[in-house]
Amino acid sequence: MAKVFGHIEGHPVGSQYQWRRELSAAGVHAPLMGGIHGNSREGADSIVVSGGYPDDEDHGDVIIYTGHGGQQGGRQVRDQDITDPGNAGLVRSELEGNVIRVVRGSGGDREHSPATGFRYDGLYRVESHHSKVGTDGYRIWQFRLVAAEPTDSPADHVAFHGSGEVAPVPRIPVTVQRAVRKTQVTQWVKELHQDQCQLCGLTLEVPGGSRYSEGAHIQAVGHPHRGPDVADNVLCLCPSCHVLFDYGARYLTDDLRVMDGLTHQEIGRLRTHRRHRIDVRYVRQHRGRWVAE
Amino acid sequence: MAKVFGHIEGHPVGSQYQWRRELSAAGVHAPLMGGIHGNSREGADSIVVSGGYPDDEDHGDVIIYTGHGGQQGGRQVRDQDITDPGNAGLVRSELEGNVIRVVRGSGGDREHSPATGFRYDGLYRVESHHSKVGTDGYRIWQFRLVAAEPTDSPADHVAFHGSGEVAPVPRIPVTVQRAVRKTQVTQWVKELHQDQCQLCGLTLEVPGGSRYSEGAHIQAVGHPHRGPDVADNVLCLCPSCHVLFDYGARYLTDDLRVMDGLTHQEIGRLRTHRRHRIDVRYVRQHRGRWVAE
Repeated sequence: MAKVFGHIEGHPVGSQYQWRRELSAAGVHAPLMGGIHGNSREGADSIVVSGGYPDDEDHGDVIIYTGHGGQQGGRQVRDQDITDPGNAGLVRSELEGNVIRVVRGSGGDREHSPATGFRYDGLYRVESHHSKVGTDGYRIWQFRLVAAEPTDSPADHVAFHGSGEVAPVPRIPVTVQRAVRKTQVTQWVKELHQDQCQLCGLTLEVPGGSRYSEGAHIQAVGHPHRGPDVADNVLCLCPSCHVLFDYGARYLTDDLRVMDGLTHQEIGRLRTHRRHRIDVRYVRQHRGRWVAE
Repeated sequence: MAKVFGHIEGHPVGSQYQWRRELSAAGVHAPLMGGIHGNSREGADSIVVSGGYPDDEDHGDVIIYTGHGGQQGGRQVRDQDITDPGNAGLVRSELEGNVIRVVRGSGGDREHSPATGFRYDGLYRVESHHSKVGTDGYRIWQFRLVAAEPTDSPADHVAFHGSGEVAPVPRIPVTVQRAVRKTQVTQWVKELHQDQCQLCGLTLEVPGGSRYSEGAHIQAVGHPHRGPDVADNVLCLCPSCHVLFDYGARYLTDDLRVMDGLTHQEIGRLRTHRRHRIDVRYVRQHRGRWVAE
């Protein structure tokens, strides 16, 4: 089933469902079995949290969610695998910054779960993941999910200790150095190139079968450049080449040779795809920002 | 003079000053001459917008600010240079995501400037920069500054056309795929390594004499990992290695060999600096997230 990231129309946060087949028919969580709807290619778009894994932690706006697999009769009997489609889907959604619909079932954490059936509790993002040896003695994968649209719950401000005690997270003053934005168009370009950098050829592969790349607008969007969000104005780049391109350390000639912005020497050719045409007007606008011609 | 990023205590947004020497004594804009306080090594921490450059555009929350240099008697007489310390400082602050104090003088845009003297108008970030041939026929560098703490002005929602007509910016739905956060500790580590990646050795250099790197916590900060924001828990990485490290495609051995997280083969050694010790506890915690031992 196709992945749909975000709310489902007609199913606001708080919607209740008695059975899995209602959840599925609604499109809120498509599969009838399994807690994760996802795979490594498309990412995961929804999960059900219902208390099936003893290492889960539900703090409201923050959920430590145990991945899929290795259970028999409600107990962990072997290690989990990060390449399991559901787990790999969560990794992919973490890399892509996708939002994930979270459904809570009545079997979950008492404070945060519905008394009966299932409830749609809104959108979360995967912030990080890790493996550890779980309470049943086997290696499990865990995903830290954080509410994308925080509720009034104070849970995102606290850290949970093993003892059950709640303490404040140490306050570390942070600011954002760089934010990578994405659109449906950048997603399409990245998929077409299978995340291979069009400038340097690198494909960043991570455990779990996911790859990472960024969509870069050639003529920057927004004032004063006002480039359009269309595929022939977008490149698929690795994060390092994205920085270099955005700051004029890389630019393109009309015939798509890659130039070094410091030495003005040719260093290669842009990798292209027959279904992804680059419009030379955007190439010229970008080059004009950096080079006098 | 040392750079101070952010508000100056005792000088709230809206503070007024009659003379440049008052602005300087307050530390709001340190130099007595010149519109930009900055250099390529430290970045720029404040600017004065006072109408000295005909290509400036002031839309309130968005300012298109012309860089420094090439003027004589109030006219542009030669090309500007991106390596001019002030201009290079703005590039560095853009790369670092630094906030910049904006002071408006009475000579600037009528709608947004004080009637007399100077006024501190709050913190902005450099969103992008570019060069173009200015109205006087010489190449100038321009910086798009956006209010870091938006006021009520609708200016950030509109694009300004050459005709003076104001039109809405096309609405492109974007979400954030990746955000790179920084702290004082990550800044210190990056400076020590002069932005050279400790994993692959790459230094990203951009025109204007700036370099780019990211500070990566080895044991991730925040629940559930709760790593500390201390230098012996931080690496200086290029953006691509940062992604690989955060997703377990790179991990370290106790003696700081660099391992490929997919093949578990050694691929090099961590670059170190004698003043930057790495604590093996954090290395083990990071490795334990990805590898069963």
